[in-house]
Amino acid sequence: MRSYAKRDFPVSNIRRLLEPGPIVLVSSAWRGCSNIMTMGWHTVMEFTPSLVGCIIAEGNHSHGMIKSSRECVINVPTHDLATEVVGIGNCSGAKVDKFEAFKLTAVEALAVKAPLIKECYANLECKLVDAKLVATYNFFIFEVVKARAATSPKFPRTMHYRGDGEFMLSGRNVSLRAKFKPENL
Amino acid sequence: MRSYAKRDFPVSNIRRLLEPGPIVLVSSAWRGCSNIMTMGWHTVMEFTPSLVGCIIAEGNHSHGMIKSSRECVINVPTHDLATEVVGIGNCSGAKVDKFEAFKLTAVEALAVKAPLIKECYANLECKLVDAKLVATYNFFIFEVVKARAATSPKFPRTMHYRGDGEFMLSGRNVSLRAKFKPENL
Repeated sequence: MRSYAKRDFPVSNIRRLLEPGPIVLVSSAWRGCSNIMTMGWHTVMEFTPSLVGCIIAEGNHSHGMIKSSRECVINVPTHDLATEVVGIGNCSGAKVDKFEAFKLTAVEALAVKAPLIKECYANLECKLVDAKLVATYNFFIFEVVKARAATSPKFPRTMHYRGDGEFMLSGRNVSLRAKFKPENL
Repeated sequence: MRSYAKRDFPVSNIRRLLEPGPIVLVSSAWRGCSNIMTMGWHTVMEFTPSLVGCIIAEGNHSHGMIKSSRECVINVPTHDLATEVVGIGNCSGAKVDKFEAFKLTAVEALAVKAPLIKECYANLECKLVDAKLVATYNFFIFEVVKARAATSPKFPRTMHYRGDGEFMLSGRNVSLRAKFKPENL
């Protein structure tokens, strides 16, 4: 399986990874067990502190683990992990050790107890900072406290879920930098 | 400018349009004025009711208009509107009539007073249903009460913002439907 050389990535700039809207893999740990879920409903909320809001439905085994541990890692997979992304969404951590079942490598994180997924392009270590909307909407607000991302390729081929089993793969990049007011970049 | 033939789109399925993460144009109206802003920080939150959460920073002229009117339209532009998408983000509705400045066509909506942008691929009419996190995070939770989308192409070439003036254009589509458990589609 693909392996990326990664380096520290500024947490205030993780919009570069998440704002295009990729499907992500959320890893968690609680009471000696780890788990992974596939997640498509997330948004950047702030640069500093680096906030990300995510929907993690109550039906997911990860929901309780993350509510209890107040931590997770948001991992950004590329399209070579398509089979794993779908497979992870198909089964429950209540029954399956997903790291083992999908042959993914759990790497110790620095700031949280949840493990990183080595095979992903980027790993964002997150602390739950606001759980006010969890009861109403399953909406978790995390602060990204530590981030690492691959140095190459510059633009990962990410997967973007459309529902109905269909994914859009990220396409070509266009810089419109020259058209922006500098303060709006 | 391009024009799309559209038809009603089920509001419970707007994840097909928003979950891949496109930049959107948010139109609003208040006290006889209309406005448009470019927005990249949004997430689907629920199928039924059809909920979308969006960050609309206080510095945007649209923030006050939407807080007051409690309505907006989320319009999904395609890459042929790249110049307009950037230009709309570069100026303020406090000074510029953006429909006029960018030669976009305001069309009357059915369920809200905010106008639709005719040239966009899809138009989602939204009512503000929860403003609890507006003061803390500029986070608005909308219910999509009416949606229309183009019938062709099936997969629009949307723009996905990476920051720093760079956009990713949506790439090819892959169906992994056969790999999904039916209940997870």
